[in-house]
Amino acid sequence: MSTTVTVTNGMEEDYLYSPDILNELNFDHCLATYKPPISHRYPGEDLLMRPLCLSDYDRGFIQLLSQLTKVGDVTKGEFEDQFCHMKSCSDTYFITVIEDTSSGQVIGAGSLVVEQKFIHHCSARGRVEDIVVNNQYRGKQLGKLLVDVLTLLSKKVGCYKTSLECNDSMVQFYSQLGFVKEEGQNYMCQRFKD
Amino acid sequence: MSTTVTVTNGMEEDYLYSPDILNELNFDHCLATYKPPISHRYPGEDLLMRPLCLSDYDRGFIQLLSQLTKVGDVTKGEFEDQFCHMKSCSDTYFITVIEDTSSGQVIGAGSLVVEQKFIHHCSARGRVEDIVVNNQYRGKQLGKLLVDVLTLLSKKVGCYKTSLECNDSMVQFYSQLGFVKEEGQNYMCQRFKD
Repeated sequence: MSTTVTVTNGMEEDYLYSPDILNELNFDHCLATYKPPISHRYPGEDLLMRPLCLSDYDRGFIQLLSQLTKVGDVTKGEFEDQFCHMKSCSDTYFITVIEDTSSGQVIGAGSLVVEQKFIHHCSARGRVEDIVVNNQYRGKQLGKLLVDVLTLLSKKVGCYKTSLECNDSMVQFYSQLGFVKEEGQNYMCQRFKD
Repeated sequence: MSTTVTVTNGMEEDYLYSPDILNELNFDHCLATYKPPISHRYPGEDLLMRPLCLSDYDRGFIQLLSQLTKVGDVTKGEFEDQFCHMKSCSDTYFITVIEDTSSGQVIGAGSLVVEQKFIHHCSARGRVEDIVVNNQYRGKQLGKLLVDVLTLLSKKVGCYKTSLECNDSMVQFYSQLGFVKEEGQNYMCQRFKD
């Protein structure tokens, strides 16, 4: 599948992964309920869900991430280098964004990262990471939609399981999306720098 | 750095990642204490620590993994395809094994998987996965050595943090290697198949 497509306004977009994978997702299998009903095909008025694009640096993607955690000054060149590194790893990075087409700004983002395994018959496992929605777009079910879509994507691309880490206050949120705290399982970490 | 090198017996080996990265590791910064002293350069008599090789299918690598979890029947072709997929993702898969050179069998293995990020100034995070030591080689500090080496590797290749998941009985083991259960952080998972 091609990951460079011509969009309706005649501009070519360089997508991190093929939009076809996202478009072909069957949202009948989504795990949450949405009131009003939204989906990856219609996240809301003027909103568009799609793979991260190389041009999203100019649509405020880095500024959006800074609402989540420390990002620092990332130049356009650094962004493009990292984008190309990710894209060169096939079937690995499925960073998905929501654009407000009225402002041309990226207002939501989330990552599915897929790890290839030898165990489970050379299977793969997914991880949902770095979910963020612009402060001004909260309460529109967009965080839930991003996690739901990334989880469905992980299943579609063959993951035998998908996991995430979250703080205590988010456990209930992720529970409604099918995530379970497995008895006796611990998450441990060590940090080398901020 | 080349990842295909000529070994002393004249055979060419195809490594998953460059052995130079492993060899250049400064083990003075290891986190555990070893009695007797071992390291990545000398894991024990007749033992060799090195990156996973394409030829390790014939050295019992898959059988070793089956001591860890479900693997299933993986053919040589499936192994090679997955190996090549992993290798095509640069700076991502650092699967490291211990070979008993007297038997030519792989008797220990562990994975460092590196995820590229945009956050933390386009940094990366590491994950230690799938640590296994052959039953007959337990009590030789090899599991500890594998985790220690993979953690040092993660720091060397630029990860700002490295994490793992483990069950309750292993928390103390990983604590001595610098891993911490962070207050209020939860690991959640959903499984799609066995």
